[in-house]
Amino acid sequence: MFSLCVRDHFMIAHSFAGAVFGPAQNVHGATYVVDAEFRRAELDPDGLVVDIGLAAKALHDVLGALNYRNLDEAEEFRGRNTTTEFLARAIFERMSVCVARGELGAGARGLDAMRIVLHESHVAWAAYEAPLPAAAGPAT
Amino acid sequence: MFSLCVRDHFMIAHSFAGAVFGPAQNVHGATYVVDAEFRRAELDPDGLVVDIGLAAKALHDVLGALNYRNLDEAEEFRGRNTTTEFLARAIFERMSVCVARGELGAGARGLDAMRIVLHESHVAWAAYEAPLPAAAGPAT
Amino acid sequence: MFSLCVRDHFMIAHSFAGAVFGPAQNVHGATYVVDAEFRRAELDPDGLVVDIGLAAKALHDVLGALNYRNLDEAEEFRGRNTTTEFLARAIFERMSVCVARGELGAGARGLDAMRIVLHESHVAWAAYEAPLPAAAGPAT
Amino acid sequence: MFSLCVRDHFMIAHSFAGAVFGPAQNVHGATYVVDAEFRRAELDPDGLVVDIGLAAKALHDVLGALNYRNLDEAEEFRGRNTTTEFLARAIFERMSVCVARGELGAGARGLDAMRIVLHESHVAWAAYEAPLPAAAGPAT
Amino acid sequence: MFSLCVRDHFMIAHSFAGAVFGPAQNVHGATYVVDAEFRRAELDPDGLVVDIGLAAKALHDVLGALNYRNLDEAEEFRGRNTTTEFLARAIFERMSVCVARGELGAGARGLDAMRIVLHESHVAWAAYEAPLPAAAGPAT
Amino acid sequence: MFSLCVRDHFMIAHSFAGAVFGPAQNVHGATYVVDAEFRRAELDPDGLVVDIGLAAKALHDVLGALNYRNLDEAEEFRGRNTTTEFLARAIFERMSVCVARGELGAGARGLDAMRIVLHESHVAWAAYEAPLPAAAGPAT
Repeated sequence: MFSLCVRDHFMIAHSFAGAVFGPAQNVHGATYVVDAEFRRAELDPDGLVVDIGLAAKALHDVLGALNYRNLDEAEEFRGRNTTTEFLARAIFERMSVCVARGELGAGARGLDAMRIVLHESHVAWAAYEAPLPAAAGPAT
Repeated sequence: MFSLCVRDHFMIAHSFAGAVFGPAQNVHGATYVVDAEFRRAELDPDGLVVDIGLAAKALHDVLGALNYRNLDEAEEFRGRNTTTEFLARAIFERMSVCVARGELGAGARGLDAMRIVLHESHVAWAAYEAPLPAAAGPAT
Repeated sequence: MFSLCVRDHFMIAHSFAGAVFGPAQNVHGATYVVDAEFRRAELDPDGLVVDIGLAAKALHDVLGALNYRNLDEAEEFRGRNTTTEFLARAIFERMSVCVARGELGAGARGLDAMRIVLHESHVAWAAYEAPLPAAAGPAT
Repeated sequence: MFSLCVRDHFMIAHSFAGAVFGPAQNVHGATYVVDAEFRRAELDPDGLVVDIGLAAKALHDVLGALNYRNLDEAEEFRGRNTTTEFLARAIFERMSVCVARGELGAGARGLDAMRIVLHESHVAWAAYEAPLPAAAGPAT
Repeated sequence: MFSLCVRDHFMIAHSFAGAVFGPAQNVHGATYVVDAEFRRAELDPDGLVVDIGLAAKALHDVLGALNYRNLDEAEEFRGRNTTTEFLARAIFERMSVCVARGELGAGARGLDAMRIVLHESHVAWAAYEAPLPAAAGPAT
Repeated sequence: MFSLCVRDHFMIAHSFAGAVFGPAQNVHGATYVVDAEFRRAELDPDGLVVDIGLAAKALHDVLGALNYRNLDEAEEFRGRNTTTEFLARAIFERMSVCVARGELGAGARGLDAMRIVLHESHVAWAAYEAPLPAAAGPAT
């Protein structure tokens, strides 16, 4: 199994609902350093997992839609706690759409899986990984 | 699959028995920077893999029982080489007990697996990962 | 010249006033990983720059007063842009008070200088360093 | 499952063929910081995944055969794009031969799998992992 | 003294002349992860050392002029060994020109000094730092 | 001012005398990841701060004399607390001798200063820096 990973980051404000969150119920924020890892069993004809330039651009665009925002006011997350693990899946889903749309190149349809890691500090990170639904779709 | 990981460290002395260890047969020591990664298929009702505060406290307590010690004199490791990989499993087992006891919260009984990584320098680390026995137990 | 440095972090929300800040005029946030470096010409009688336990506790307390807050609502920063470099000096000043009060131990009055670094992502950090006013005070 | 990982690096020049590579079609170069992770279900009688000294030496020798070279002139890579992911597999294969030859010690024949990660910058890495063919071979 | 630092990278091929360089006399290459640190005694009216967006763009442009090249063929380095320390100064000089030209904003003329660090691997880096000539120029 | 830095590590056991050290009065240990930074105003005729191969070898040899030892039994540290900051100076002094002896090459006599940093964990480091006495000696 091959992997290729690119890194970028975004900076947001949010707050959490529920006593389990203690002081994180206050409006606070985070820098998330994000790793997007793409996996496939065999390389494409160019010897690549995925075009690294397109992968980096897609990640930058996906994170750009969240960057410099207060997620408490984001319509798409209404009523949800935007925990680090929740955001890892949200970014996974958005990146999956990019893959399915061909934004990472036609070859990216051969990807088997993806893993998104969000580093929230030097002592904590969360991740979401799953097979890529797009990979099972028709490549036509 | 979701993951959440917390990091802490401990500092110990030890020595190894066996010619394969060369100069590490002498009493020496190590700083181990430890990553404890918790995995589960679905988030709990709060949108969490596990309560990060409880997870960090459990790891700190488990490492605290080893910190600032000469492991050659530790009754529980008598006759064993406390290699990095051996210690990774020992910490896994202690953390598993914490999970089973509910020290990471009731929701932690939904955890599927755990991975413990011990970084011993900038050029070497060892790890142990396994399904969490507690996860298969009765949640009542 | 000797140095000793301890690391901790805090997570806040804020926004900036001024067109120069572009999208950072929105409410967003950051994780700041903070290095507090203490400097002195000669070690104290225990062979230390400063008691590392007291230094880590002082840093944790200073950052704890900022952690999980929206700095836009902080009385002490009213009318100020809490940029990374501004916060580095604010933390420097609070740590200086801790030194002057003896919270880092009596030996810490022998410190010559301090440097506070705030890492805001994997690609940016800011710092403030200065002689320690406390060092010029009477050591009696 | 246990893991042990050692890190080293090498520095090469190369160029890529194909419009997809854009400016990387020029002769350029890279530092690759390489992690070699060895995996096995149970530790050997010494409490080890693999002899870390032999593992580090094998990795150093394998990378040494590539270090300070222009890979465009390497006979063994003729007609291939030596992308990061391609090199990860090439190094995997060379390390596999070392394991099969007993260069990592007789105990290394108990290894189940290996993962090679090449970090090409602070924002990108690629990897190749697979079961170790040598592990299935005769241990006689 | 305040500092602000931004990070980027570039990837080049080169070779060195002189027996002291041993195998590095061959054409090989490197990834250089570059930190550009800007220093000044007092913050500008916006509470900044320098506009971080402009600083990052200037660094990216300066590195972009070197990225994906074989420095042995670079007219501007003819007859010079493009060692890591040499390149640190070369990048310093180019960044100084950007500051003097106002590409980092008018406020950047208040900068006192700059430090350029090139990380060439996980075990080696080189740097060049100096007062900023532009700082002595007319601020009108 | 130019800098060149190389990194290596060593692993030791020790204990400290004095109530200020709390649990670190027990025999414990540490991995120290060591950065040796060399500084000079102008590069040597080869375009170098110092021969990086010789610098790395000297550091490896100096650390090798401490590696895999119990410093409580080291004759040269009898009656001293081998704190991180103390060890930083001890390594500085040993490296200074290497420079003076010409082990880093004749050009190394042009070095102005040196800084030794010991990272003891992901959250603490200590350092010692000073002008290099050798630099003042006769260069003949």
